[in-house]
Amino acid sequence: MEGGQIQKQAQQYKVSIIGSGNWGTSIAAIIAENTKKHSSTFHETVHMWVKEEQVDGKNLTDIINTEHENVKYLKGFKIPSNIIATPDLKTAVESSNVFVFVLPHQFIVKVCEQMKPFLPSNTIGISLIKGFIIDDNSKPILISQKISSVLSVPVFMLSGANIASQVISGPFSEAVIASPDSQSSSSSLKLFTNLFTCSRFSVKTSSDLPSVELSGGLKNVVALAAGFIDGLESGENAKAAVMRIGLSEMIQFIKHFYPKTNEKTYLESSGVGDLIVTCYSGRNRKVAEAFVKGETKGDWEKLEKEMLGGQKLQGVDTAEMVWKVLKAEGMEKRYPLFVTVYEIAFEGKDAKSLYEVAAKHAELFPTVEM
Amino acid sequence: MEGGQIQKQAQQYKVSIIGSGNWGTSIAAIIAENTKKHSSTFHETVHMWVKEEQVDGKNLTDIINTEHENVKYLKGFKIPSNIIATPDLKTAVESSNVFVFVLPHQFIVKVCEQMKPFLPSNTIGISLIKGFIIDDNSKPILISQKISSVLSVPVFMLSGANIASQVISGPFSEAVIASPDSQSSSSSLKLFTNLFTCSRFSVKTSSDLPSVELSGGLKNVVALAAGFIDGLESGENAKAAVMRIGLSEMIQFIKHFYPKTNEKTYLESSGVGDLIVTCYSGRNRKVAEAFVKGETKGDWEKLEKEMLGGQKLQGVDTAEMVWKVLKAEGMEKRYPLFVTVYEIAFEGKDAKSLYEVAAKHAELFPTVEM
Repeated sequence: MEGGQIQKQAQQYKVSIIGSGNWGTSIAAIIAENTKKHSSTFHETVHMWVKEEQVDGKNLTDIINTEHENVKYLKGFKIPSNIIATPDLKTAVESSNVFVFVLPHQFIVKVCEQMKPFLPSNTIGISLIKGFIIDDNSKPILISQKISSVLSVPVFMLSGANIASQVISGPFSEAVIASPDSQSSSSSLKLFTNLFTCSRFSVKTSSDLPSVELSGGLKNVVALAAGFIDGLESGENAKAAVMRIGLSEMIQFIKHFYPKTNEKTYLESSGVGDLIVTCYSGRNRKVAEAFVKGETKGDWEKLEKEMLGGQKLQGVDTAEMVWKVLKAEGMEKRYPLFVTVYEIAFEGKDAKSLYEVAAKHAELFPTVEM
Repeated sequence: MEGGQIQKQAQQYKVSIIGSGNWGTSIAAIIAENTKKHSSTFHETVHMWVKEEQVDGKNLTDIINTEHENVKYLKGFKIPSNIIATPDLKTAVESSNVFVFVLPHQFIVKVCEQMKPFLPSNTIGISLIKGFIIDDNSKPILISQKISSVLSVPVFMLSGANIASQVISGPFSEAVIASPDSQSSSSSLKLFTNLFTCSRFSVKTSSDLPSVELSGGLKNVVALAAGFIDGLESGENAKAAVMRIGLSEMIQFIKHFYPKTNEKTYLESSGVGDLIVTCYSGRNRKVAEAFVKGETKGDWEKLEKEMLGGQKLQGVDTAEMVWKVLKAEGMEKRYPLFVTVYEIAFEGKDAKSLYEVAAKHAELFPTVEM
């Protein structure tokens, strides 16, 4: 990328981050390092759209812009000074052409609609949002596709084994970036690889977007099962079995709607990597353990209040969505783990009913395909 | 299996277990339950060959046969009384036609040679031995094939996420049984499925024997990496990344020698399941953690003495074998994790060199294949 001709194309990309939670702020730090490092490709300045709130009588955006720390969502970590927080969506949108979406999924459609009037032409996006939504017929919809359809821009996906605070503080993490269109996206994949890769964050690319995106949501259902098993103190063989069977149901579920998805993708950071992190260190696991054996066991609402400050536990919502999808497709019998998690979470079934899942799975799928 | 004609074939199979460690004794309990349950197929009595030793002045075989407990290797667990322990290999061999091999791999060839003179015709075997050996040219040899070539019998393989004591005490575990020959072995697979399946042990079958067998050895090298990461307190993102990259190097290694192996098999209990159990709960992980941060850090011999009563740590041996194989094939550069583990374990390299593995891996394999 040297010489006169390339100079003309210099700094053609300007990045805005739509979202500023702990995940958004962690990844913003990496992005802002990289826009400086690849300054012939990117404008250094990175806008981060922040839903304004007050912290100790000050605007959160002002604190971020003066102290270079998101004291609300990633306390204790300095972020680069070329991240400019703005409460104004128009400011974050109108001068940028690369958008990184990292919001709770329930807000995404509304925010995209608010962005639309200010959106320049020829932009691209990447979603870091794990999870999915279902339509009125209980069919899953990819959030990246939803963003793409609202804004009429191509939207890529990044997902991996990433506990947010460790992305900024840990020695290394990894992720997969998937493209929505396998034909025409190699230059965009290169762009995003440059935007995210650094010594503490490694990236691989993929064309299997449904795997990369849906795994990030479905793994939370498996994490509930892992948490129940931990709560029952059933041991590591049982936990590994539940995780393994959960992974196979994730693949089966995604394959049902996206037949081209490939088993190889599930061996990557967005598949097995993320599953491992979530089933050992995630909050879905932790709250599910308490659901089985804590003092307020059996009550999600109380547990969410006590353990998550009232925030919704994503795995519980996802377990319900998955169950609706399975019902609508008439395929509950082929998903003993997902169905059992739903029944434990919503219908008061004994968590020990998980003990029958391995036998049911082996009966349904007695042979490993080749 | 009813009616006159079948009656003639009744009880055609008599099982002997060659080995009596904690894994052998745990699985013996399941086998002996199943020979009783499927009494039209199997003789109830199961012989277990025990290398005789003295415990409190008594023969271990006598203790097992009177107290129905292997007080040396699986203390605290009663085993079925139809398990007959014998110190005499001839007794264990001459009247049986189904052999379950569950010995430390360094003894297997010698024991097979001792078995050979007494072996009836038309027998089959199954190996539960994780690990592999290398020949003089540093090529890996499957232990099941080694047994098969010494005894001239077909030898199957069982492997999975199985901490031995939890197989007997836990609510459920699972495993994969692989056949050495995809054409002609469906009746044998059925036989072994009946021999091992019970409410607390689920079995799937596979024709990808190299994956099932070699994964059980190679995963111990990955567990060393996971233990080093734990010792460095590098966090869960890094641990998941190391496990995930380790799994990909396991597949690559096996594929190099057995090109027909299939990614799908690695998503099973013998692949990712066993990897998870080993990297969170196995002793390779535990000792590797101490190698990095314990009081006697950096000294495998001392650690083995202190933590394993002098028993050899399998992962360390396997790491060395793998390194020899990679050298012989000239493919070290494509295995950054395996090579780094070797260098940390044997060449005094800083464990933090693991921090570079994810970046090296992404550089070597930038794209997830479809």
